[in-house]
Amino acid sequence: MRIDAIAARLRAEIGADRVLSDRQQLRTYECDGLAHYKVIPALVVLAGSEEDVVATVRACAEAHVPFVARGSGTGLSGGALPHADGVLIVTSQLRTIVELRPEDERAVVQPGVINLQVTKAATPFGHYYAPDPSSQQICSIGGNVAENSGGAHCLKYGFTTNHVTGLRVVAPDGDLVELGGLAPDTPGYDLLGAFVGSEGTLGIATEVTVKLTRLPETVRTLLAAFASTDQAGAATSAIIAAGVVPAAIEMMDALSIEAAESAVHCNYPAGAGAVLIVELDGPSAEVEAQFTEVTALCEQAGAFEIRVAADDAERQLIWRGRKSAFAAVGRISPDYIVQDGVIPRTALPEVLRRINEVADEHGVRVANVFHAGDGNLHPLVLFDDGVPGEAERAETVSGAIIDLCIEHGGSITGEHGVGVDKARYMPRMFSDTDLETMHLVRCAFDPENLANPGKIFPTPRLCGERPGRHRGALDHEGAEVF
Amino acid sequence: MRIDAIAARLRAEIGADRVLSDRQQLRTYECDGLAHYKVIPALVVLAGSEEDVVATVRACAEAHVPFVARGSGTGLSGGALPHADGVLIVTSQLRTIVELRPEDERAVVQPGVINLQVTKAATPFGHYYAPDPSSQQICSIGGNVAENSGGAHCLKYGFTTNHVTGLRVVAPDGDLVELGGLAPDTPGYDLLGAFVGSEGTLGIATEVTVKLTRLPETVRTLLAAFASTDQAGAATSAIIAAGVVPAAIEMMDALSIEAAESAVHCNYPAGAGAVLIVELDGPSAEVEAQFTEVTALCEQAGAFEIRVAADDAERQLIWRGRKSAFAAVGRISPDYIVQDGVIPRTALPEVLRRINEVADEHGVRVANVFHAGDGNLHPLVLFDDGVPGEAERAETVSGAIIDLCIEHGGSITGEHGVGVDKARYMPRMFSDTDLETMHLVRCAFDPENLANPGKIFPTPRLCGERPGRHRGALDHEGAEVF
Repeated sequence: MRIDAIAARLRAEIGADRVLSDRQQLRTYECDGLAHYKVIPALVVLAGSEEDVVATVRACAEAHVPFVARGSGTGLSGGALPHADGVLIVTSQLRTIVELRPEDERAVVQPGVINLQVTKAATPFGHYYAPDPSSQQICSIGGNVAENSGGAHCLKYGFTTNHVTGLRVVAPDGDLVELGGLAPDTPGYDLLGAFVGSEGTLGIATEVTVKLTRLPETVRTLLAAFASTDQAGAATSAIIAAGVVPAAIEMMDALSIEAAESAVHCNYPAGAGAVLIVELDGPSAEVEAQFTEVTALCEQAGAFEIRVAADDAERQLIWRGRKSAFAAVGRISPDYIVQDGVIPRTALPEVLRRINEVADEHGVRVANVFHAGDGNLHPLVLFDDGVPGEAERAETVSGAIIDLCIEHGGSITGEHGVGVDKARYMPRMFSDTDLETMHLVRCAFDPENLANPGKIFPTPRLCGERPGRHRGALDHEGAEVF
Repeated sequence: MRIDAIAARLRAEIGADRVLSDRQQLRTYECDGLAHYKVIPALVVLAGSEEDVVATVRACAEAHVPFVARGSGTGLSGGALPHADGVLIVTSQLRTIVELRPEDERAVVQPGVINLQVTKAATPFGHYYAPDPSSQQICSIGGNVAENSGGAHCLKYGFTTNHVTGLRVVAPDGDLVELGGLAPDTPGYDLLGAFVGSEGTLGIATEVTVKLTRLPETVRTLLAAFASTDQAGAATSAIIAAGVVPAAIEMMDALSIEAAESAVHCNYPAGAGAVLIVELDGPSAEVEAQFTEVTALCEQAGAFEIRVAADDAERQLIWRGRKSAFAAVGRISPDYIVQDGVIPRTALPEVLRRINEVADEHGVRVANVFHAGDGNLHPLVLFDDGVPGEAERAETVSGAIIDLCIEHGGSITGEHGVGVDKARYMPRMFSDTDLETMHLVRCAFDPENLANPGKIFPTPRLCGERPGRHRGALDHEGAEVF
């Protein structure tokens, strides 16, 4: 009955229309972009202001009820999966651009502001917001902060964490805290970095100060077609080794090209085993010089066709295939898992070969569309849920891909976050001591484990009786480290 | 007698020659670069390995004795000031470059490695380590990590925190923890960011993975002389507003030029009220185009002479005046305080005028040598300790400069850290709730407050009985925030 009491209190405090408890309405929020986990929340609050978030978190804290924040719900790791006995706090109505300061290269926005809206607002002043997830037309800045989202152009410009300089945060006890600000760095602990990517487990952001990036003088885009992903991978390594940092280097393999063709008729070169999209931006003089170099390096790596976008329309056409690829895979397979992992660039050819081998062994198809420049893979593991056993085989292959990433010195997630989906992989990457160290920060902020419980950490952990580490457990683990 | 027991234990565990307890030897370590605070430590350990650091921290933790880490001791905020009842752990003998991976643009180094040595090791492979404090010939990477050090070229390349991707850390209980790694980002909480700049209060780094930056194709340097700091400030704003990001924009005012002339005869243009050193680096085509633009902008802002370095020797000559300036001030004043604050670039002319007014009011001279592009001021407040009252007046002016920085939306430190010197200013910049939030992270790592106590936080704070916040205190403070 605690939930009923919270509902009654919040209806009085922030308005009845902001508090949903009807089962049918609650079902709308049962999952985020990772649709194979579904949980119906006990209550949904549609926050209309920072005060609403504070009131809701305070009510939860006082009643010892868990809460989960949700922006647009486009996340792919289940970071916004609701808690069955908890409150889901939806921030998508907090979509005011509070302040635009192009002269300081900063914007202050509410968490529900859509990623692309920041760019649209800044463009008249010659600026844009650099991190560009594929979902940028619908994903929110708050969600980007929670998951430390990336995008195609993060190769040159960095992830969300590199573009957030300040946050107002409602801590798990309902207090409002300021982290960072307009300046590039602030004294004391840099908790801003720890908060970005903490997936709602340290509190809820209610105001985000982001960097605005100056629009480049020139953008040039080419599409290079290769016989194999080996060749395309070699071209990627050669470009980076030459000291060129393109704004983006994206790779698609034969299966993903096939899917994109059937969906948007992007008309990529026929017979390509892989294509690279390389985009360069910056001062014209620099871009022209580098463009010549990149073209030569693609040819040396074996590109059999190179197309250069002559204008913005042609540029859009090249990107259209890439941007549609995830959705397009739905045309060639009823179901698929989007995997997200990172490897060193130099390991690309080897890991792509191994992925194909593992897929073949299990009789599963894998399409690869990814940020090659970053070594950030996005294998799409295809299956048909209607065929018994296929989903399980796809899961096995998907997990094996993560193992390949770790084996090659990479990471279990590049930009989608850990969420509920990858918590189980965390012990493959971190020692117990490492995880315990993260957890003690979580306990410092949220000793009762109310803020988005069940995410990031592999097993439920209790916070100790006293602040700090469980010395006994750690002394034991410490031995493994040496 | 706890110290004697620690000394005996460590002499047995790590070797007698590594443990100093002779009063005369201890005195060598009584201060760091901020010489007006002096404390003789109870014991000094000269660590020869990571294991030595672990053994020492464990011994301290078990005996509840405070410890302070020290690298080269060049810090300017007293971050490495010893604790009178504690152990000073000196890491300057840990100076092995563990691994150089130019193909991955990474180096793994021990904390005692000198900043410039990383660049020297990487140069044959076409790379260097970008953060360049003025003390780079003697300061250590461990100290750079502790203080999140900057330097002239941080305008374009960012601070230490932007160049560290991994750390091995001895936590305050003696456990060894890995934060980050070779990849640009890792899942879970980004504790790397929180650790860099934590000034030894969260543990001691024993291995640091840093980014290596590709050597630029071209470097061009000019010296522009102006009648006033107003004009030089306007030129700085105009360059940044034009979208050029030079590698460095440094400013010196008349008094600091006078000091540099008398020390190193750098032969800067006579009669200058201010000079700017502007350095551009990158691909030749880009640098040439931008160089023309910068020259024109300096002329428009009123530069009466512009000198362009024709070769590396002339470039060194231009930098010689700037790099010698701090030491040179010793020739025109027996004593001085180096202040470190940040303001928005656009406020430069106004704040420099106000600094002069405050200095005049108190009959104190202030020389300004600083990173103009970042808005990172380094006013040198001159005084003669032999003249009664002068030191106090200099302190007053130095404090007033910090107030000016905060008033103009800036920060109490740009790159020297908070240390013991600026802890008292923290409440001018942060609310109690903000400081409390930082402190609960400290308590999570170090509940007994043994790791470099007395630094960063303005007043001694105890960690609560239970993990997390002191709810009562915060509810009270929370009211102020709304």
